[in-house]
Amino acid sequence: MSKRPIVTLLTDFGTSDHFVASMKASILNIHQDVELIDITHDVPAHDIFAGAFTLRNAIDLFPRFTTHVAVVDPTVGSARRPILVMTDNFNFIGPDNGLFSYIYQSETVNRVIHITADYYFRNPVCPTFHGRDVFAPIAGYVAKGVDPRKMGEPVNDYVKFETPRPDTSNPKVLRGAVLHVDRFGNCFTNFTKEHISLAALRGGGKFVTVNPQDPTKNREIVKFVTHYAEAQPNELFALFSSTGHLEIAALKVPAARVLEARRGMEIQFHIP
Amino acid sequence: MSKRPIVTLLTDFGTSDHFVASMKASILNIHQDVELIDITHDVPAHDIFAGAFTLRNAIDLFPRFTTHVAVVDPTVGSARRPILVMTDNFNFIGPDNGLFSYIYQSETVNRVIHITADYYFRNPVCPTFHGRDVFAPIAGYVAKGVDPRKMGEPVNDYVKFETPRPDTSNPKVLRGAVLHVDRFGNCFTNFTKEHISLAALRGGGKFVTVNPQDPTKNREIVKFVTHYAEAQPNELFALFSSTGHLEIAALKVPAARVLEARRGMEIQFHIP
Amino acid sequence: MSKRPIVTLLTDFGTSDHFVASMKASILNIHQDVELIDITHDVPAHDIFAGAFTLRNAIDLFPRFTTHVAVVDPTVGSARRPILVMTDNFNFIGPDNGLFSYIYQSETVNRVIHITADYYFRNPVCPTFHGRDVFAPIAGYVAKGVDPRKMGEPVNDYVKFETPRPDTSNPKVLRGAVLHVDRFGNCFTNFTKEHISLAALRGGGKFVTVNPQDPTKNREIVKFVTHYAEAQPNELFALFSSTGHLEIAALKVPAARVLEARRGMEIQFHIP
Repeated sequence: MSKRPIVTLLTDFGTSDHFVASMKASILNIHQDVELIDITHDVPAHDIFAGAFTLRNAIDLFPRFTTHVAVVDPTVGSARRPILVMTDNFNFIGPDNGLFSYIYQSETVNRVIHITADYYFRNPVCPTFHGRDVFAPIAGYVAKGVDPRKMGEPVNDYVKFETPRPDTSNPKVLRGAVLHVDRFGNCFTNFTKEHISLAALRGGGKFVTVNPQDPTKNREIVKFVTHYAEAQPNELFALFSSTGHLEIAALKVPAARVLEARRGMEIQFHIP
Repeated sequence: MSKRPIVTLLTDFGTSDHFVASMKASILNIHQDVELIDITHDVPAHDIFAGAFTLRNAIDLFPRFTTHVAVVDPTVGSARRPILVMTDNFNFIGPDNGLFSYIYQSETVNRVIHITADYYFRNPVCPTFHGRDVFAPIAGYVAKGVDPRKMGEPVNDYVKFETPRPDTSNPKVLRGAVLHVDRFGNCFTNFTKEHISLAALRGGGKFVTVNPQDPTKNREIVKFVTHYAEAQPNELFALFSSTGHLEIAALKVPAARVLEARRGMEIQFHIP
Repeated sequence: MSKRPIVTLLTDFGTSDHFVASMKASILNIHQDVELIDITHDVPAHDIFAGAFTLRNAIDLFPRFTTHVAVVDPTVGSARRPILVMTDNFNFIGPDNGLFSYIYQSETVNRVIHITADYYFRNPVCPTFHGRDVFAPIAGYVAKGVDPRKMGEPVNDYVKFETPRPDTSNPKVLRGAVLHVDRFGNCFTNFTKEHISLAALRGGGKFVTVNPQDPTKNREIVKFVTHYAEAQPNELFALFSSTGHLEIAALKVPAARVLEARRGMEIQFHIP
């Protein structure tokens, strides 16, 4: 097979410093015939949740056997473990700090390995840059064909944070939250089609944003659309995003600014 | 021939979210043996003109048969058509909203195709993300060798905005405009060598910026140079840029800040 | 050997305009079978020192024979020479303005060539964009296998700025400086293990920042760690970074903000 293996990178390293290039060099140093794809390096510094969410949204369509390296690692060098997550489709490499929490839900996980095979690490390992000295080399060797199971022993006690799910205990008022605000100011919520039916959306259901500091700023969103251009300029509306999340958006203005919304803000769905 | 086909991407998706990676995954999913090149993903959100102008400036030297995917698509999911533009040199794939207006001028267009071959789309198509579900897969198949003419029927009524051209009706005072401000604060105008001769530039011609709110801020630029280092620090000057546009610049300071210039600002050329 | 040659790019062009894509197109135009890796394009505009420092930090692990193109070139088009630096490991291509000053220290330089072989340039050369018309084509031909020595004659009088080194004339108070502030606000100093021993660090040595405008803002850093998570939140500490530089950092807050530190700020090391 002549296809070049794919390795993706997601970090909070930004693109101004040498960090990302050093990681790529470290991979190429081990296996030059590889396709490197950036997912993003603009994860907010140390924001494991944001990294986990973006990783989950980005990976669906990558070819099978793609290796995903993710490094948002505020406790690099401490006792937190480096891990390799083998799923039906992909290998994931990064710190065991919850960064793969969404992956554990969306992928079929076959094995989680505590990476201990320091034979494959850069020598010496710098305790502040495992991205370059541990994760990248491991990705290089996996891309080169080394069996991931050689990287260490399986573990079951990997770190997994609870992904925020809507509170559906009150069937008339579902309580969800904003998970992510994208570059257009669209607000991705944790509601999916699992929680909200098209019937409810079209039969008088409405969203209400909850501003705890100033309830006068709470806003109702009554319009549901299937694509952006259905809405009127400046109008707030809801739609199902390309990731499956219910999204609150507005035409020509950033919805997040209109709503003063940030990650974690409560959004309710009222069923008539 | 063993060369890998090249696919470029230009979008307004930014680089913080998963959008660009999802598009690349979608291409690689169809044809893994491809060279992906980012033009930019920092087109201002929904700014079709800016995307069109940057696309025009970026493509000249790409090898023949490069496929350029461009997505600045505020009405994604509406009735606006997906199109594929075949020129002597390249294939362009994106929405039919004017994004290729400069291409229609600078390239020899052989055919514009309304993309309807949904057999090649991701299934299902999400109405908010044609970048991933329509444009990227079509690019993947074209890169793989599928004849672009199979993607749909030719159309002649594609959308083409008027690219702003200088008003030369008064032969002593040509009226042009700023098309783009680059990261250095250099102002690209719509004057080219077609409008302004070296003789006029060197024989006393001058540029005058027009600030409609406050004419006291109008500035005269009398210096013409061939490269930046000919000028003095802080001095405003004109030169022909690498794209062929007459550029107003300054040494060590951003000209756009000195001039309070933005896209659309009038700049006159006075011929003595 | 079937490995694709690697060409890296480091510029101050940003990623919003067409500049970087034009350079890549220019390389691919000459040799399509190449691996293009971005080091960064976010070097502050015209900041040769910052470009030189990031280049030095990024290159270590790239495979032998990688070609590094670096363009921070405020006097492009003037008499400053284009050069090609051949070292034991790499080829470097860019302007002769000091951008390779750190390379001259860290690499074994075999030859510095004044590039004059205009046969390989784009024709015509635009005096404002040697990145596209001189440096990229030269990189393309070197990647294609043209002997770098064919690009011009060797020179010895290449431009090399003095890289800032600590003043160690007073053995009790070493005077160093901040070289770089990274995206996390960590401050890279010009102290290395050559200047500061672990014994001194662990035996009561302390760092003192020098704020010339307001000495009341001078801060003492007495904690030395080997990785970030050893520190307490908000605590300032020192550690040796992955580049070999002594780094002043803080946990969860940007040290540079706490210290009001910028490049060039004096930092002393007091030996007890």
